[in-house]
Amino acid sequence: MIYQLYYWPGIQGRGEFVRLALEEAGAAYQDIALLPEEEGGGVTAMMNILEGAGVEHPPFAPPFLQAGRRLIGQTANILLFLGPRLGLVPRDAAGRLWTHQLQLTLADFVLEIHDTHHPIGGGLYYEEQKAEARRRSGDFVAYRLPRFLGYFERVWERNAQSEIWLAGKQLSYADLSMAQVIAGLRYAFPRASKRALRGCPGLRALHDEVFARPRIKRYFASGRRLAFNNEGIFRHYPELDA
Amino acid sequence: MIYQLYYWPGIQGRGEFVRLALEEAGAAYQDIALLPEEEGGGVTAMMNILEGAGVEHPPFAPPFLQAGRRLIGQTANILLFLGPRLGLVPRDAAGRLWTHQLQLTLADFVLEIHDTHHPIGGGLYYEEQKAEARRRSGDFVAYRLPRFLGYFERVWERNAQSEIWLAGKQLSYADLSMAQVIAGLRYAFPRASKRALRGCPGLRALHDEVFARPRIKRYFASGRRLAFNNEGIFRHYPELDA
Repeated sequence: MIYQLYYWPGIQGRGEFVRLALEEAGAAYQDIALLPEEEGGGVTAMMNILEGAGVEHPPFAPPFLQAGRRLIGQTANILLFLGPRLGLVPRDAAGRLWTHQLQLTLADFVLEIHDTHHPIGGGLYYEEQKAEARRRSGDFVAYRLPRFLGYFERVWERNAQSEIWLAGKQLSYADLSMAQVIAGLRYAFPRASKRALRGCPGLRALHDEVFARPRIKRYFASGRRLAFNNEGIFRHYPELDA
Repeated sequence: MIYQLYYWPGIQGRGEFVRLALEEAGAAYQDIALLPEEEGGGVTAMMNILEGAGVEHPPFAPPFLQAGRRLIGQTANILLFLGPRLGLVPRDAAGRLWTHQLQLTLADFVLEIHDTHHPIGGGLYYEEQKAEARRRSGDFVAYRLPRFLGYFERVWERNAQSEIWLAGKQLSYADLSMAQVIAGLRYAFPRASKRALRGCPGLRALHDEVFARPRIKRYFASGRRLAFNNEGIFRHYPELDA
């Protein structure tokens, strides 16, 4: 099975949570929107699915994954599907549901991180909502950031089956996403995240474990991993990092 | 199996998406936070789980569901779990994944609806973020509301298996949630939602079908269904309904 991933070029965004799972598992996949149009790639190929009248199960937005005849949207749903196939989730039903629950809470966290720079609307530039972004970021840094990180640190502490991972005995896609969120936070909010992560030794270690995985290191070294930038979810605006 | 649902008293909120599924299926459940403290209920019982040091899989926030020994958080995850047990999801794996994908997109929609009145922070009063709420609602009404409703109308149209429901042949939990969102929008944004729903005959009909179901009618008649109010997700502030 060669998976086809569709996501916006130029940013890590939500596509990166799926990429990290595929990379860690050594799965074969194509990043369709990054391929040339002549090879059936590009944003055109992505828009053909998003807007195609004949698509039975249209996704609302990227990322989405084509797996054989299946077309699957919503980041957490893609990972729910891939988890067992890539060996990135516990084997028992309760463990799978719990991992998915963590992923959904990470999705909530990611959206709040995004909205720090876009509190009014995704269709407006940051510059058009700077004052509101400042206010929202103030609230985020003071209350939401420590609340979310504290929660995940607690989850990490209470996992009796592992001293490294969030859920179950082994690495799961939720660990990959957690590490990615920490990396993103350190890029976007270096000061605030340093402060908030001080009380989270478990998450800091988890981050390091993930990014030391051989296949993840190979992915980074390949040049295919994009750098964080101010077009994505995690953006560094010093004025928001209080 | 008697399910135990935990959610904030006084509002429909996200708990209502779970309640509608339980009610439609005629499932036995207790709404724990609405029971007297003397009977082991109340907000205290809910906080004991949210903040209890011995809880292995702590939820981040209500609603959460106790099902025997399982404790499940995140609205969409609860419905993912309940769907097959309550007969509210297609039988095939692809149909289940698609239904869940729709539920996750509804969750995104619901969060954007919530943030129209709370664009800066959930810990602040509406009155403290009125100016920002007005701007965000303007964007929501102009772009996001028609975009989400248009998307779900398209999904409805493309479901070749039913002329009533969103996914598969029969009623699913996504239909119940969709109807609830329409009801909430009509309460919160009577003018804007009327306009946006004009081009969505499928969704309007789906809404009417859901609220005409015998068990849903019985639930409404029981007095247990709370009215919408300005403490919940869907709030009616005329100044935001442009």
